[in-house]
Amino acid sequence: MPRFGPMYGPDVTFLGIDRCTIDEPGSYAGADVVVLGAPFDGGTSHRPGTRFGPQAIRTTDYLPHDRSRPSLALRVDGLQDLHVLDAGDVEMFSGDAERSLRVLEEAVTTVARSGALPLVLGGDHAIAFADAKGVANHHGHGRVSMIHFDAHADTGDIQSGSLWGHGAPMRRLIESGALRGDRFLQLGLRGYWPGPETLAWMAEQGMRSFEMTEIGARGLTACLDEAFAIATDECEGVFLSVDIDVCDPGHAPGTGTPEPGGFSARQLLDSVRRICMELPVVGIDVVEVSPPHDHADITAALANRVVLEALSGLAWKKRGTGHDPTRPLLDGR
Amino acid sequence: MPRFGPMYGPDVTFLGIDRCTIDEPGSYAGADVVVLGAPFDGGTSHRPGTRFGPQAIRTTDYLPHDRSRPSLALRVDGLQDLHVLDAGDVEMFSGDAERSLRVLEEAVTTVARSGALPLVLGGDHAIAFADAKGVANHHGHGRVSMIHFDAHADTGDIQSGSLWGHGAPMRRLIESGALRGDRFLQLGLRGYWPGPETLAWMAEQGMRSFEMTEIGARGLTACLDEAFAIATDECEGVFLSVDIDVCDPGHAPGTGTPEPGGFSARQLLDSVRRICMELPVVGIDVVEVSPPHDHADITAALANRVVLEALSGLAWKKRGTGHDPTRPLLDGR
Amino acid sequence: MPRFGPMYGPDVTFLGIDRCTIDEPGSYAGADVVVLGAPFDGGTSHRPGTRFGPQAIRTTDYLPHDRSRPSLALRVDGLQDLHVLDAGDVEMFSGDAERSLRVLEEAVTTVARSGALPLVLGGDHAIAFADAKGVANHHGHGRVSMIHFDAHADTGDIQSGSLWGHGAPMRRLIESGALRGDRFLQLGLRGYWPGPETLAWMAEQGMRSFEMTEIGARGLTACLDEAFAIATDECEGVFLSVDIDVCDPGHAPGTGTPEPGGFSARQLLDSVRRICMELPVVGIDVVEVSPPHDHADITAALANRVVLEALSGLAWKKRGTGHDPTRPLLDGR
Amino acid sequence: MPRFGPMYGPDVTFLGIDRCTIDEPGSYAGADVVVLGAPFDGGTSHRPGTRFGPQAIRTTDYLPHDRSRPSLALRVDGLQDLHVLDAGDVEMFSGDAERSLRVLEEAVTTVARSGALPLVLGGDHAIAFADAKGVANHHGHGRVSMIHFDAHADTGDIQSGSLWGHGAPMRRLIESGALRGDRFLQLGLRGYWPGPETLAWMAEQGMRSFEMTEIGARGLTACLDEAFAIATDECEGVFLSVDIDVCDPGHAPGTGTPEPGGFSARQLLDSVRRICMELPVVGIDVVEVSPPHDHADITAALANRVVLEALSGLAWKKRGTGHDPTRPLLDGR
Amino acid sequence: MPRFGPMYGPDVTFLGIDRCTIDEPGSYAGADVVVLGAPFDGGTSHRPGTRFGPQAIRTTDYLPHDRSRPSLALRVDGLQDLHVLDAGDVEMFSGDAERSLRVLEEAVTTVARSGALPLVLGGDHAIAFADAKGVANHHGHGRVSMIHFDAHADTGDIQSGSLWGHGAPMRRLIESGALRGDRFLQLGLRGYWPGPETLAWMAEQGMRSFEMTEIGARGLTACLDEAFAIATDECEGVFLSVDIDVCDPGHAPGTGTPEPGGFSARQLLDSVRRICMELPVVGIDVVEVSPPHDHADITAALANRVVLEALSGLAWKKRGTGHDPTRPLLDGR
Amino acid sequence: MPRFGPMYGPDVTFLGIDRCTIDEPGSYAGADVVVLGAPFDGGTSHRPGTRFGPQAIRTTDYLPHDRSRPSLALRVDGLQDLHVLDAGDVEMFSGDAERSLRVLEEAVTTVARSGALPLVLGGDHAIAFADAKGVANHHGHGRVSMIHFDAHADTGDIQSGSLWGHGAPMRRLIESGALRGDRFLQLGLRGYWPGPETLAWMAEQGMRSFEMTEIGARGLTACLDEAFAIATDECEGVFLSVDIDVCDPGHAPGTGTPEPGGFSARQLLDSVRRICMELPVVGIDVVEVSPPHDHADITAALANRVVLEALSGLAWKKRGTGHDPTRPLLDGR
Repeated sequence: MPRFGPMYGPDVTFLGIDRCTIDEPGSYAGADVVVLGAPFDGGTSHRPGTRFGPQAIRTTDYLPHDRSRPSLALRVDGLQDLHVLDAGDVEMFSGDAERSLRVLEEAVTTVARSGALPLVLGGDHAIAFADAKGVANHHGHGRVSMIHFDAHADTGDIQSGSLWGHGAPMRRLIESGALRGDRFLQLGLRGYWPGPETLAWMAEQGMRSFEMTEIGARGLTACLDEAFAIATDECEGVFLSVDIDVCDPGHAPGTGTPEPGGFSARQLLDSVRRICMELPVVGIDVVEVSPPHDHADITAALANRVVLEALSGLAWKKRGTGHDPTRPLLDGR
Repeated sequence: MPRFGPMYGPDVTFLGIDRCTIDEPGSYAGADVVVLGAPFDGGTSHRPGTRFGPQAIRTTDYLPHDRSRPSLALRVDGLQDLHVLDAGDVEMFSGDAERSLRVLEEAVTTVARSGALPLVLGGDHAIAFADAKGVANHHGHGRVSMIHFDAHADTGDIQSGSLWGHGAPMRRLIESGALRGDRFLQLGLRGYWPGPETLAWMAEQGMRSFEMTEIGARGLTACLDEAFAIATDECEGVFLSVDIDVCDPGHAPGTGTPEPGGFSARQLLDSVRRICMELPVVGIDVVEVSPPHDHADITAALANRVVLEALSGLAWKKRGTGHDPTRPLLDGR
Repeated sequence: MPRFGPMYGPDVTFLGIDRCTIDEPGSYAGADVVVLGAPFDGGTSHRPGTRFGPQAIRTTDYLPHDRSRPSLALRVDGLQDLHVLDAGDVEMFSGDAERSLRVLEEAVTTVARSGALPLVLGGDHAIAFADAKGVANHHGHGRVSMIHFDAHADTGDIQSGSLWGHGAPMRRLIESGALRGDRFLQLGLRGYWPGPETLAWMAEQGMRSFEMTEIGARGLTACLDEAFAIATDECEGVFLSVDIDVCDPGHAPGTGTPEPGGFSARQLLDSVRRICMELPVVGIDVVEVSPPHDHADITAALANRVVLEALSGLAWKKRGTGHDPTRPLLDGR
Repeated sequence: MPRFGPMYGPDVTFLGIDRCTIDEPGSYAGADVVVLGAPFDGGTSHRPGTRFGPQAIRTTDYLPHDRSRPSLALRVDGLQDLHVLDAGDVEMFSGDAERSLRVLEEAVTTVARSGALPLVLGGDHAIAFADAKGVANHHGHGRVSMIHFDAHADTGDIQSGSLWGHGAPMRRLIESGALRGDRFLQLGLRGYWPGPETLAWMAEQGMRSFEMTEIGARGLTACLDEAFAIATDECEGVFLSVDIDVCDPGHAPGTGTPEPGGFSARQLLDSVRRICMELPVVGIDVVEVSPPHDHADITAALANRVVLEALSGLAWKKRGTGHDPTRPLLDGR
Repeated sequence: MPRFGPMYGPDVTFLGIDRCTIDEPGSYAGADVVVLGAPFDGGTSHRPGTRFGPQAIRTTDYLPHDRSRPSLALRVDGLQDLHVLDAGDVEMFSGDAERSLRVLEEAVTTVARSGALPLVLGGDHAIAFADAKGVANHHGHGRVSMIHFDAHADTGDIQSGSLWGHGAPMRRLIESGALRGDRFLQLGLRGYWPGPETLAWMAEQGMRSFEMTEIGARGLTACLDEAFAIATDECEGVFLSVDIDVCDPGHAPGTGTPEPGGFSARQLLDSVRRICMELPVVGIDVVEVSPPHDHADITAALANRVVLEALSGLAWKKRGTGHDPTRPLLDGR
Repeated sequence: MPRFGPMYGPDVTFLGIDRCTIDEPGSYAGADVVVLGAPFDGGTSHRPGTRFGPQAIRTTDYLPHDRSRPSLALRVDGLQDLHVLDAGDVEMFSGDAERSLRVLEEAVTTVARSGALPLVLGGDHAIAFADAKGVANHHGHGRVSMIHFDAHADTGDIQSGSLWGHGAPMRRLIESGALRGDRFLQLGLRGYWPGPETLAWMAEQGMRSFEMTEIGARGLTACLDEAFAIATDECEGVFLSVDIDVCDPGHAPGTGTPEPGGFSARQLLDSVRRICMELPVVGIDVVEVSPPHDHADITAALANRVVLEALSGLAWKKRGTGHDPTRPLLDGR
C-alpha cells in the first residue's frame, strides 16, 4: 500500500529525513520520534492557510536538506543522535473537522503506542485535541500534563457553531478526561479573549495560565520554573503544544490570529529547548503557521527551528553529555 | 432578531446599499436583487482564503460607497434602477461543508421564492451547489439552465473523500436533478483536469463545454451565441456562475487554483454584461476570489465589476431603453 | 443631515461600536469617549498611505466585531465599561492641509466640550496639532500636558515649504500657546533628525525628550516615572499622542518614516496602559499607520491594540477595582 | 543656485541622461525634450503613492542607465537622436494642491517657451491641468488639442471639496480656455464614473470619448484614426496625456484607481508610438504610477516604456527615415 | 553513488514523476524525456532568483502531484503516454558560470545520446548555450535548428566582462558552430536592446527574428508558419527555448528582465503546443522564472504549463490520434 | 576616464555625499572614509539578491539626501564632521567569484593605502575576504583584528565546490595569514551550522565566538567587553564586519539565510556605535542585505542606520567631545 504523502504539493520529509508509513508499524519500529503533518485549516476562526504549514515547516531552511542538524549550542545533532522519521501527512478534510480530528487522533495514538514520540506539524490549533488525546490514549488519561505556548487560551466552548474550532481544543481535552485541568500550563496569553465566563471555567479546572503581564513582571525563567514544577507533579509525561502566535507578530506574522505584544523568537526557542532538556516530553505539536500570510518565510523558518530546538533538547537529554550551552562556543573542544 | 452580519470583519454591504435580513421577508419585499455572502473555503482543494471573498467583493472599489454606479457603457445605474439589497453573510462553517451548504441552499431558496434574484458572493465554488439548487427549488428542477465560466469543469466525483469539495458542485447539481446536464454550458475550460472518465460522464449528460482552444479558434462571440441558444431551449431561467479563475492568472491572481491561459478581464466583463442583457437570468454567483493571494486587490476589483456588469445588464433589460453600448459615449446626448 | 461616514471605503465603526454624529451633540451626550477618524496624509514627508489608517485601525482584529473586548490583564471591558461611540471620519482634504487641520480642530474641540474624551485615529502626525489644540481649547491653553511616543521630535519649523507638515505639529502646538513646552514629554526619539538648531529651540522651551539611548540605559520604567511627574505638575489633563513609528520597524513596518532601533510592541502596549491607568488623560491620538506599507496587517493590528489598551486602562481607572495585572491570570476567581 | 533635485530619494535622471535646471534657460537651450518630475499625490481620491512615480519611471529599467535606448522596432535611439535633458523634480506640496499646480504650470510654460517639448512624469492626474495649460500658454490657448488615455474622463466638477483633485483636470483645462472641448479626445474610458450630469457637460463641450465597448467593437486602429483627424483639425499641436490606468489592472496594478477591463500594455505602447510618429506632439505627461501598489515593478516598467516609445516616435519623425516597424527586424540590414 | 538532488530545498521531481540519475544511464534507458534542473542565476544581468526556478516549475501546480496530467485539449496524458523521468538538478555554481555551463552541457549531451529528449528547467538563459549545444553534440552540429521565444535576442557579445552572461548564449551557440545562424528563429523580441552593431551581426548570420510589431501586424499564426518552414529546412531536429519573459510582465512578472508589451500566456501556450505537435523537437528548455519576484506564483504556474503543453504535444504526436483540439470538448465521446 | 557607477540602476551615492573614483587617488585625498559598493551575490548559498544591497543601503532613508545626518544621541554629524566620499560600485561579476574578489581586494587596498577607511557595502559575505584582506594588506597581515557580527561562523571549507562562497570567507582570511585566528571575535552565532569538524578547526585557530545562548546568559555588554579586550591585544586596527542576519529575521527579513533568534535592531545599532567610539576601527563592511526579500524596506533601512551609527561613532571619536549619549537629550544645551 502506498504511503500517503503530503497533501499540498510534493512528497517531502522534514529536512530530508527518511520516510515511514503509519499503517506499517515496522517502518518506524525503534524510532525515537515520528513526524506527522496535519494540513488542516478547517478549524480556524479567521485567516486560513495553515494547511500549507506542514510543508512549510518541513522545508523552510536554507541549509541542505541532508538530514543532519548539529546544534551549535547543545553540541548534539537532533536528526542524527535521534532516530527521527517522517510519516507524511495524515489525510485531512478541511470541510469536515470532526472526521479529520478522528483520523488524526488514531494516527497519533498508533505512533505513541509504537514507543515513538509523535511530533505533529499543524495545521490550525484545533488539531491539538487529536494530538494530545492521541498521546494520552497511550500513556493514560490524566497521566500527561500540558505545556501550552499561545496568545490564546483556546478554551472556548462553542465556536461558530462548532465544538471543533481552533479556539476550543484545550477545553475539549479537559472535558474528555484525557488531560487534567490542573496540569495545564499556559504561557504567553494576552489580549481580549476569552471573557469572564470562560476564565471562570478555567479557574475551576485549576489551570495555570501565565499572561504576558505576569511574565513581564516576574521574568520568563521564574514562570517556567513554576510551570515545570506543576507539570511534573503526578504526571509522567508532558505534551508540548506550541502555537506560533505566542510570538509577537513582528517575529511571526504568518499566522491566522496574530496578537501584538508577544514573545520574541529567542524567548520561544530558549523555552522549547529547556523544556525538552528538562522534562519528560512525550508528544509535541507546532501549529498555526500560515504561509500565505508569511513574508520572507520568517514564520515558517521560526517553526522549523522550534522543531529543531525540541529535537536537539531531546537528543541532549538522551545522550546525557551535560554540555552547558551558556559556555563559550569553542571552549575546551 | 438581529441581522447576521458579515462573518469576517465589519458589517458592510455591497458598495453601501441598504440591508435586509433573510429571516424577515418583509425586509426585502419588492427587491429585484438580494445579495448574499457565503464566506466559505472549506471546499477548496488548494489555496484557501475565499472566506474573505464576500467582504472583498463588496468593498473593493475606489469610488465612494454611495449606492450608485452609473454604467458608462449602458447608461443605466445598476444600484439605482434596480432595487438591490444586501442580506449580509449566511453563516458558514468552514469545518463543516455539508451543513454550510444546507444552510446556504435554504437561504437562497427563500430569497428566490420572494421574487428577488439571489446574487451570491463566494466563497469557493462548492457553494454553487447550494446557489443553483436554491434557485431551482423555486423555479422548478430542470427549468433552469446554467452558464458557467470557469477554468475547471467542477464535475468531479469524490474529492479528498468528500462529495462537497469545490471540484464537484456541477456533478452534484446534475445528479440531484436540480439542473439538466444538457442545459449546462461551460466556458473557459482548460488545463489538465478532469480525466477521461469524468469527461465521459459529462458527455453522457449532454453537457456543452467550450475549452479555450475552441473559443480561440471560433471566437468568443460565436461560442456565446451557441451557448445562448441551448440555454434558452426549454428552460425559462438561467443561472450564471462566474468562477473568477476563468480569467488568466495575470488578470485574476487572487484565486485558489489559477490555470494559465484564460480569458482577459475585458472578455469576462463583456460576456457577463451580454448574458444579463439578453437572457432571463434568475440567479448569479461570483466565486473563488481569494484575497490573501491577491495583489493590489485587482482580483477583488474585477469581481466587484463582474457584479456591477451583471446588475447593469439587468437594469438595462428592465428599463428597456435599447441603448447600444458600442455607440460613441457622448453621442446624441 | 446624514452622518459623514468613513472617507475611503465602507462606513464602519471601531470594532462595531455605535455611531454618533459630530454635528448632533445629542448623539454623543454622556459618552466617555468619542472616536474620530482623520484620514489625512497630506502632511507626510515620505511614504503616504495614512489616509487608510483610520479604517485599518478600526477593523484589523480577528475577533468578531461585537463591541466587546474584555481585557485579560485588567479584567475590564473597554468597550462595555465605558460608553464609547464612533463619529466616523472628519472630512479631510489631502491636497489642503491647512483647511483639513482647521476642520479637525473644530471637531475635536466640539467633542471635548461635550465632556467626552476625543480619541483620534490618524492620519499622519500633522493632525496632532488639531487634536491636542482642540482638547486644550476646552481644558484651557497651558492646562494640558503632552506625552508623546515617537521616533521623531516633530518640532521642525518649515517643512517642504509648509508650516503644516507631519514633522512640525509639536512646534506649532507650543508656538500657538495651546501647550506648554515644559510639559512636553517625548519618548522613543532616535536617529538623525532634527539638527542642532531645532534641538536648541526644544531645550529653550523646556521640553523633556527621552532618546532611546537614555531609555536603554535607565530603563523604560524609570523614564516613565520621571515623565509622569512632570506631566501632572500644574497640568490637570494629559494628551497622549502615539506615533506608531516609536516601535521598531520589525514591529511596525507599515508606517511612512520608519526608524530602526525602537520600542517593542510589548513596551508600547504596557506604557499606554500604564498612562491611562495612572494619569488624567483627556485626549488621545494614534497616528502614522500606513496600510499600503504594512504586511500581514501587523502594524494596523498593533494600533488597534494600542487603542484597546488605552480604553482598558481608562475603564480600569473608572471602575476603580484596583485589579493588579501582574497577578496570575486565574488567581482567586 | 543649486538645481532642485528629486524630492524623494537620490537625485537621478531618466536613465542617466544629462541634467538641466529650469531656472537656468541656458542649461537646456537647444533641447528637443525636457523631462520634469511632478511628485505629487495630493490630488488623488483613493490610493496615494504617485509622489514616488517620477523616481520609479526614471529608473525602472534592467538595462544600464547609459542614456542610450536603440528602439528595435523603429531603429532610432530616442535618447541619442533627440537632445533630451532631465530638469529634476518641480517642488510639489502634497498638502497644498493649488500652490503645487501653480508652480508646475510655470515650469512647464518656461520649458515650452524655450522650444523644448515638456515631458512631465507624474504624480497623480491633477497635474495634467498644469502640464497642458503650461504648453498652451506658449502655443496659444485653443491651439493645442488633447489625446487622453485613461479609464476615467477626469471631468468632474468639485471633488472632495476641491477644484484640484485628480478627477477634474480635464474640466479645469476646458473651463480655463486653455484647451478646446471639441479637440479633446479620450480613449479607454470605462466603468461607473462620471454620472449623467457630467456626461452631459462633456457632450456640450463637444468632447469625443471612446469607451472600451466602442473600441472593442470598432477596433483600436479605427478609433485612433478618427481621433487623429479631429486632433489635427485647426490645432497645430497635440498634448498627449497617458494615465497608466488606461491599461487593465493586470498590466498596470500599481495605480491608485484601477478599473478592470482596459488596454493591454501592447495596445498602449503601439498607440503612443503611433501618435508620436504621426502627430505634431508638443507636450506629454505620464501619470498615476503608484509604486507602493505595484508588484515586481511592472507598472513602473510599463510607464518607462511609454516614455521611451514616445521618444522613439519623436526621434523617428525627426530623422525621417521612414523605417517601417512591421517589416522583419533584420531585413535588408 | 547517490543521486544529486535539487540544490535548493527538498529533493522533488516534476509533479511527482519517477527519478533517474544522469550518471547511471540504465536509470533512464528507454525514456522519452528526461527532465533536468539547472538552478543557475550567475549569468543574469539584473534581478537574480532563477536558481529557484527548477524547484518552482516542478512543483507549482494545485493538482495532486500524481504523475498524471490528462490534457483537456489534446486528450493525451503527457506524463503517462510518454516515459518521462526527472534527473534532478545538475550541480550549478552561481559564482562560476563557465564551470557550470561545462557541467550542464555534459549532462545534456549524455541524456541526448541516450535517445531521450532533454528538457531543461532554468535557471537564467545563459544555460541555453549548454542546453542546445548538448543536444547538437548528439544530433550533429548544424543539424538542429532553434525556435526561441524571448523578449531579447540574447546575442550580445561581451556582457559585464563575461562571455557567459544570459544576454549572450545565442551568439555563443552560433559562434561555436553548434547551431546555424540561418536556422535560428526568434519570436517576441521587443524593446531597446541590442543596438545596431549586434543587429548587423545577427543579420549577417541570417537569423530570422520576429519583433512584436511584425507579429502584431501579420498575426502570430503566419509568423509561426514562416518560422516552421525555415526550421525544418535541412535540419532534422528543432530545439525549443522558451524564455518566460517573452510574455508580458502582466502574465509573467516573476522574471529578471521584464519587458512590457509581450505575448499573452494563451499565445505562448498555443505556440508551444503547436511546435511540439508539428515539429521534430529534440530538446527543450524553459528559463528565466525568478520566484522571488513572482506573486501568487503565476509565473511559475505558467512555466509549469509550458512544460505540460510541450509534453502533451509530444505525446499527441507520438500517439498519432489526430485529435483536433479546436473541436468541442465533449464531442463524439 | 569615467567613474564606474553603480551597476544596477542609477549612479547614486550614500545619502548624496560627493563622489570619488578609485582610479584617481586625488579624488579622495584627505578623505576619512571612502564608501565602496560590492554588488555581488555569486557567493550566496541560498536566496540571492544582495547585488541590489549597495544601492538599497545608500538610498533607503526617508530624510532628504542632503549629505548631513546629525546624530541625536552623539551630537555629531557623521557626514559633515568626517570627510566621507562614495567611490561607487566596484565592478562585480556574479558569475565569476574569484575574479570579483580579486578586483575588490585591490580596490580596498588602494583606498586603505590612501589613508581613508574603506567602508564596503555588500553584497554577500563572500566579499569580506577581499574587504578585510585589502585592509590588512595596508596595515600589515596579522595586525588587524576582526569583530564579526553574524548568525553564521562563515568558516566553512569548500562550499558547493567553491572556495569562495559566502560561508567561507573567515576561513580564507585566516588561512591567507591576513588575519590572526586568535584575534577573531564573533558575535551572534546560532543555529545548526557549522558542524563539529569546522568547530574544531575554529578552536584550533583560537577564535572567540559568542553564541546567542552565552550572550543571553552573560549579557551583551559583558561579551562586548571581553571581545574588545582581545581585539586590541597586539593589534592596532580592528575590522568590523556586520552581516545583517545577526539580527532576528523579524528585524531583518531581507537577507539570504535568515536564522531565527538573533539580535534586535537596537542591540546591533548600540554595539556598532560603541565599537566605533571605543576601538581603532580601520575597515568596515555591511553585508547580506537582499532587497528582493525585504518588505517595507526595513532591512535596508537598518543597514543604512548601521552605516550611520558607525560613521557617527567615528566622528564622535575624532571630535573628542566626550558627549555621553545616555544623558537626557536636551540637557545643558
